[in-house]
Amino acid sequence: MTESLHTWQDHGCLATYISASGSFANLRIYPHGLVSLDLQSYGGDAQATEVDGLLNEVEERMKDLSRGSPGRAKRLPPIVRGGAIDRYWPTADGRLVEYDIDEVVYDEDSPYQNIKILHSKQYGNILILSGDINLAESDWVYTHAIMGSGREDYAGKDVLILGGGDGGVLCEIVKLKPRMATMVEIDQMVIDGCKKHMRKTCGDVLDQLTGDCYQVLVEDCVPVLKRYAAEGRAFDYVINDLTAVPISTAPEQDSTWEFLRLILDLSMRVLKQNGKYFTQGNGVNLTEALSLYEQQLGCLYCPVEFSKEVVCVPSYLELWVFYTVWKKAQP
Amino acid sequence: MTESLHTWQDHGCLATYISASGSFANLRIYPHGLVSLDLQSYGGDAQATEVDGLLNEVEERMKDLSRGSPGRAKRLPPIVRGGAIDRYWPTADGRLVEYDIDEVVYDEDSPYQNIKILHSKQYGNILILSGDINLAESDWVYTHAIMGSGREDYAGKDVLILGGGDGGVLCEIVKLKPRMATMVEIDQMVIDGCKKHMRKTCGDVLDQLTGDCYQVLVEDCVPVLKRYAAEGRAFDYVINDLTAVPISTAPEQDSTWEFLRLILDLSMRVLKQNGKYFTQGNGVNLTEALSLYEQQLGCLYCPVEFSKEVVCVPSYLELWVFYTVWKKAQP
Repeated sequence: MTESLHTWQDHGCLATYISASGSFANLRIYPHGLVSLDLQSYGGDAQATEVDGLLNEVEERMKDLSRGSPGRAKRLPPIVRGGAIDRYWPTADGRLVEYDIDEVVYDEDSPYQNIKILHSKQYGNILILSGDINLAESDWVYTHAIMGSGREDYAGKDVLILGGGDGGVLCEIVKLKPRMATMVEIDQMVIDGCKKHMRKTCGDVLDQLTGDCYQVLVEDCVPVLKRYAAEGRAFDYVINDLTAVPISTAPEQDSTWEFLRLILDLSMRVLKQNGKYFTQGNGVNLTEALSLYEQQLGCLYCPVEFSKEVVCVPSYLELWVFYTVWKKAQP
Repeated sequence: MTESLHTWQDHGCLATYISASGSFANLRIYPHGLVSLDLQSYGGDAQATEVDGLLNEVEERMKDLSRGSPGRAKRLPPIVRGGAIDRYWPTADGRLVEYDIDEVVYDEDSPYQNIKILHSKQYGNILILSGDINLAESDWVYTHAIMGSGREDYAGKDVLILGGGDGGVLCEIVKLKPRMATMVEIDQMVIDGCKKHMRKTCGDVLDQLTGDCYQVLVEDCVPVLKRYAAEGRAFDYVINDLTAVPISTAPEQDSTWEFLRLILDLSMRVLKQNGKYFTQGNGVNLTEALSLYEQQLGCLYCPVEFSKEVVCVPSYLELWVFYTVWKKAQP
């Protein structure tokens, strides 16, 4: 064990302990009384057990030392880095959360994004697109919310789904016997990954790209929306399952807001006067992003009204906002 | 900036950088290619912004370096230690999760436990007993589940609630007009904290310890159960809202299992032949603890049957198992 000590004039001290087996520890003592101990080790389960035993002893000693004083000691679970499985997928509001991931089921780059499907013990398979948790097999409540939380009658209706490559929305809509549900998903690889690995979400609806009352177009939805608008097509429901509300209005993000406005505007053009538009917003803590989104709703080609609902999607580990938008009644 | 370097023969190297302002960083390079960088600093928001900027640069450089190679670089949100607010309350299955806590509302030691009520931006106030997340104001679904998920008719019934000091179960039961709901909670300080700070959960039901159709006994439930059993009292529903299923069967935990069996047995003695017993189990990933609990159900004074349900309680950040237990029909 090598030991070294650094002492600041006004900032306390740092002791570093280095073991022959490659582990090291930092003991940082701050002058106002905070003591932090970080231990980093690399190795298999045997080493993990040894480290765990060592930390148990440290914890007991710390608790002994702080007994009878107003101090407190707290030990956090280890952060595991560098393995094949990444268990850390921070929430939209930037909190560190660890998932119970135990298997990488699918990991491919498509021309559009990185597509991961990871297995969680409790949530089933989870679809992660370019690092964002999209949907887990446990998340029927997401699909339910973005379809209007059971308040709508889809029978005999025309429905347009933007995105939704996991097939969850399409699968649920088809059960409700629409006249025609059209899904426009740009990424064939998302469809392929989900139809194989997210079957609790999509059932068999993605096995064929067309069915009795549905069709899947593997295309960019913007030209499709423009075509439909030009043709005067009108839908009872438009469900935007594309992407969350952008978080920032920084210059480099402007294009995301423009894209979002474009989609919204085109969607309103193909929506019947008494139709409804459903979409997800973002995490409920992203109040600024959400109110920016609500401002956008005031800048469309026609006046609209909206309502929102806060929903607990199991795998998100944060509450999520869903919007319903409709055209203002004509006077 | 002070820099020091330690090189192992077979385990790579560790560079430590120490700044004059009290920050330090460890750059650990492992021989198989993993590089970890940990930076620890202490200070206010100004320093946090500076550190954030620095880490943004590091991240960009890491991404540049790994471009075109099969490598990946990932940055995790900072872990904040030593502040007045503790945002880390690991799940029952031991995962590290960060909550959006922004205020310590209540923090007291009672004769029985430490009682904290912390404010979360999204979940409202959260009751934490001796370090365990008990219930947040957002968690109506917990109360709903431990009452039988809306499948029961409490009107005119006799109900016994064990624990439940947050008042959530009592508040919902009282709305359903039972003949008499009796709640037995040992800790007056839990009641006092919750009636002030968890009003979205308990409404005004804890303002008085008795009402038209309810009473709250501030007592240990074991002697109460024994008394009721001796008197031949019989309830339509017993709701055990005391504590989660113990995780371990290690010797030092034996008393917890004994306590749990005692409560279960006494509860069955005061339950009508066609009555129902509801309780929470534990996190869904604690399969061993849950099956040990199910084994206990086979060791009671009378034969019982049970069903279980997996529920997403918003503030738990893990799925939770709830049990319904009933006496086997007499032949």
